[in-house]
Amino acid sequence: MKSNLLSGIYNPADLRLLKEEQLVQVAQELRQFIIEVVSVKEGHLGASLGVVELTIALHYVFNTPDDLLVWDVGHQAYGHKILTKRRENFHTNRQLGGVSGFPKRDESIYDPFGVGHSSTSISAALGMAIASKLKGDFDKEHIAVIGDASIASGMAFEGLNHAGVTDANILVILNDNAIGIDPSVGALKKYLTAVKNGKNPKQNNIIKSLNFDYSGPIDGHDLPLLIKELNRLKKTKGPKFLHIVTTKGKGLQQAEENQVKYHAPGKFDALTGEIHLKSEENLPPKYQDVFGLTILDLAKKNEKIIGITPAMPSGSSLKFMMDEIPERAFDVGIAEQHAVTLAAGMATQGMIVYCNIYSTFLQRAYDQVIHDVALQNLPVIFCLDRAGLVGEDGATHHGAYDIAYLRAIPNMIIYAPINEIALQNILYTVQLGLDHPIAIRYPRGRGVLPNWGKENFGHYNTVPIGKANCLKDGTKTAVLSTGAIGNNVIAALKELENPQTIAHYDFPFIKPLDNDLLDKILASFDNIITIEDGTKIGGLGSAVLEYATANNFVKKIEILGIPDIFIEHGTVIEQQHFCKIDVKSLVNLFKKL
Amino acid sequence: MKSNLLSGIYNPADLRLLKEEQLVQVAQELRQFIIEVVSVKEGHLGASLGVVELTIALHYVFNTPDDLLVWDVGHQAYGHKILTKRRENFHTNRQLGGVSGFPKRDESIYDPFGVGHSSTSISAALGMAIASKLKGDFDKEHIAVIGDASIASGMAFEGLNHAGVTDANILVILNDNAIGIDPSVGALKKYLTAVKNGKNPKQNNIIKSLNFDYSGPIDGHDLPLLIKELNRLKKTKGPKFLHIVTTKGKGLQQAEENQVKYHAPGKFDALTGEIHLKSEENLPPKYQDVFGLTILDLAKKNEKIIGITPAMPSGSSLKFMMDEIPERAFDVGIAEQHAVTLAAGMATQGMIVYCNIYSTFLQRAYDQVIHDVALQNLPVIFCLDRAGLVGEDGATHHGAYDIAYLRAIPNMIIYAPINEIALQNILYTVQLGLDHPIAIRYPRGRGVLPNWGKENFGHYNTVPIGKANCLKDGTKTAVLSTGAIGNNVIAALKELENPQTIAHYDFPFIKPLDNDLLDKILASFDNIITIEDGTKIGGLGSAVLEYATANNFVKKIEILGIPDIFIEHGTVIEQQHFCKIDVKSLVNLFKKL
Repeated sequence: MKSNLLSGIYNPADLRLLKEEQLVQVAQELRQFIIEVVSVKEGHLGASLGVVELTIALHYVFNTPDDLLVWDVGHQAYGHKILTKRRENFHTNRQLGGVSGFPKRDESIYDPFGVGHSSTSISAALGMAIASKLKGDFDKEHIAVIGDASIASGMAFEGLNHAGVTDANILVILNDNAIGIDPSVGALKKYLTAVKNGKNPKQNNIIKSLNFDYSGPIDGHDLPLLIKELNRLKKTKGPKFLHIVTTKGKGLQQAEENQVKYHAPGKFDALTGEIHLKSEENLPPKYQDVFGLTILDLAKKNEKIIGITPAMPSGSSLKFMMDEIPERAFDVGIAEQHAVTLAAGMATQGMIVYCNIYSTFLQRAYDQVIHDVALQNLPVIFCLDRAGLVGEDGATHHGAYDIAYLRAIPNMIIYAPINEIALQNILYTVQLGLDHPIAIRYPRGRGVLPNWGKENFGHYNTVPIGKANCLKDGTKTAVLSTGAIGNNVIAALKELENPQTIAHYDFPFIKPLDNDLLDKILASFDNIITIEDGTKIGGLGSAVLEYATANNFVKKIEILGIPDIFIEHGTVIEQQHFCKIDVKSLVNLFKKL
Repeated sequence: MKSNLLSGIYNPADLRLLKEEQLVQVAQELRQFIIEVVSVKEGHLGASLGVVELTIALHYVFNTPDDLLVWDVGHQAYGHKILTKRRENFHTNRQLGGVSGFPKRDESIYDPFGVGHSSTSISAALGMAIASKLKGDFDKEHIAVIGDASIASGMAFEGLNHAGVTDANILVILNDNAIGIDPSVGALKKYLTAVKNGKNPKQNNIIKSLNFDYSGPIDGHDLPLLIKELNRLKKTKGPKFLHIVTTKGKGLQQAEENQVKYHAPGKFDALTGEIHLKSEENLPPKYQDVFGLTILDLAKKNEKIIGITPAMPSGSSLKFMMDEIPERAFDVGIAEQHAVTLAAGMATQGMIVYCNIYSTFLQRAYDQVIHDVALQNLPVIFCLDRAGLVGEDGATHHGAYDIAYLRAIPNMIIYAPINEIALQNILYTVQLGLDHPIAIRYPRGRGVLPNWGKENFGHYNTVPIGKANCLKDGTKTAVLSTGAIGNNVIAALKELENPQTIAHYDFPFIKPLDNDLLDKILASFDNIITIEDGTKIGGLGSAVLEYATANNFVKKIEILGIPDIFIEHGTVIEQQHFCKIDVKSLVNLFKKL
């Protein structure tokens, strides 16, 4: 390789000092840098490889950070981070105290808008663009880079629909690679593919119909072409739209060929691309796989079962059912609102619908849960993966609020399984017939039962709705946990020399609470502690407090959970420690009692 | 008029016995019936008048209730209700125990999906259509009737995007009248208008690009044409789209000419259309007008102030600012998600953005509040109109959950003004500079200060953030209220013979709570009662409980508010009485103390 150009680029101003013909080399070096760091430090790979040329072209042509650049979702922003003063720290990506895996306002002036959830970039950039005009700045450019999976989400359409009737300086760049985390779906994707294949004359154009100056599609890996086109657009005022075609994983053969796997491949060989497989033997299964395997098993026996995922076939493991029973398993794209109301519509016709949405993304469909499901008391089954603290994805992705926001909704049942068996059993139970909607929340990552697959999978027991369980008797203190965080309590109790004073109760049902058992606990114990992997405000602890005061139990109740701040990226253990709900913190707490 | 046909129509089967040439008369009678009832009983007028022909044609051609018909939003469904067994009860529309103002599943088998919020119909009908196919029913039709204002909302696009790649029997009928409650906005509306004016050849069609069998635009008041077209579509399988053009308010001259006013005109003369004006003298102002007048006044002095409404210029009274300072007041259409992130984008550039959204509709943008505003700690000002119980619009429209769902979000300030002065002062205070986002929630309807306009408007005082107020001293019981429901406490206390035992505190800040004052209250009183116009789960009461237990105040606290069920339509007073937070219930409660 020629002399290293990348090491001389501290910020985009340095990039702009280079000659245009040098940029191809920068692209090569940047791609290599991303591959080398991610291969050992892990993270999101394919998306950033796909936009190396775009990233360089944007910072070369536009005057960042004065021109404002918003990366939708942000999986693809590694190159951007490396070129904007964060190259030397990039090896700390996604680690506690390190660089965030997503653009983030307080990390850099080059990140004018924090992202993580999809489809926000157009609205945010438009807001900036309108503000600039009002402040008298008519030259500043405001750029939203959005993928074809994200632009199919309703929110992006709302942004386009507004931008098209303004004279704001907004440039929307559609990074069309036909894939989000999983392959893109939907009618718009079909249309875009036809456009790319020349099957739609440009004048017949959805985007033009929305009043944008549309150009493209062009090859997003052709740096000279990109730079030429961006320079042209730089001089054009008002809402503009550039359609570029890229390949996710560009430049690493395996990543190009295996785009789903190389979205976030874990550690791999930087030269060959080979993924370093960890042995999964003797590890407990992932909760998502317990869901995926169980719904497939149940759906084979019950023809009314339907599965829905908004764009997370792999992440939710609904993929298993999509492969075997495609007619009843639906990936609807990044469309949580639609997913929920679609489920409600199906439920009116007697179908048993499992709507699997990450806890953090159900926030996108809160109104639909209330208005279309709960108000009509339709027995839709919400499976909330990634509930609680999620680790390296950080503040944007925690499933911290679901208990609080769902608990306030009439008719809702909320269940958090303590382990794989409890998850499989509730999934089994709900399809026997349910009078209400239910939300089943379970965490990211693995369970606690290495032998679940061999010993338990497929052997179902009915879960009595609303019942809690005594896991351990005790004399003085009652610990009430909900969900998998209960395993931390179990582990902590095992480390105590004298655990006999502490009782442990598993309250998988946050709503309805087990009033009978709660009466006994409130009557018997002086010290009561609740613990949950969710915000302390409005969660299980509050539910117990509300019940206690309404029933004249006047008791101090200590609430453990996520405090009232946004928790930064790090490992789940580090985050639990910060929240004082890790095993070590619990051991210390219990020892003090 | 010829012999009365309408009185012979109990259900759509009766309608189908008529000859096609008789339907024009049915339309005339149905329109007249709607006008006569609404003129004395009030309700939504214009939308239903606009779809009289469509309603008749749909029930005539399709085999309802076997074919499933979903009316988006439902403002336009009066004719549908009258033709489907509810004519004789229609005079009870929107009254306690009477017919609901919206289609509702438990009211009729002709209402397969409850509505109220917009843009749900396509997703719901698609869910039904997919379910029908899975159940082996390949002939059933599934119809979504949606207006041009609703179809511009992101959720509708998500539904279209999915439907277009299915082979489900779904018929989307776009009722294009260029108006929702206020005139429609946005690029799609501009496009549709061009289509109507023949300026876009049909083959250049957004809807066709999404893979639908598109037909239209046709005159939606031409019954024979509608029936012919629907008969053709009945035989067509898969996703179909019919674009019809109608006039909102059709058949009542004033309603056609004054479409915003006649959306829900109150009582009027059925013959002349003249609205019966009530004298507004000596009445307190509407809270929405306090907002509308105050933001206009403040925006004149502070150039950084921006106002945003998603499709509620009239309902929020942002109209006042839109008329005078259009460059800083935005109606973005039914696009709550976009509205919030647009506000966030503007806030990053130093603008002071008042984003006015009805409490119930902010549910649509919950994720954006968390992810785009609160996580970045941007000082966006959310003005939540129609917070709490809303009366006749019923269960779909209560702003019951906002305290619970907002309180769990870090960085959020939540404020509920007790009256017009408090509302104007907080609106003034926040534009002086704020470190956090804030939600200001205030109820539907009028305040309590008839002279606010003359005496208080424009005379601002700064509100100390986080401070509560003692409104009345007392010896035994402390009543903590938040927001305008505090006026019920004041009124109830006035009716007591011996009110001296009861203290009354106004806690406008639900977050952060006034810890100093709360410490004193918790230390001084044996009985503590909280009262709020919001769900009891997770609200002010829970906040006080959480604070008390965390600070070792072990006390019984009685929580008053909306119980854990959906509250049906009726007057606000009736609903408050049901929840035991009306003046009468409070008097009884206080007397028992």
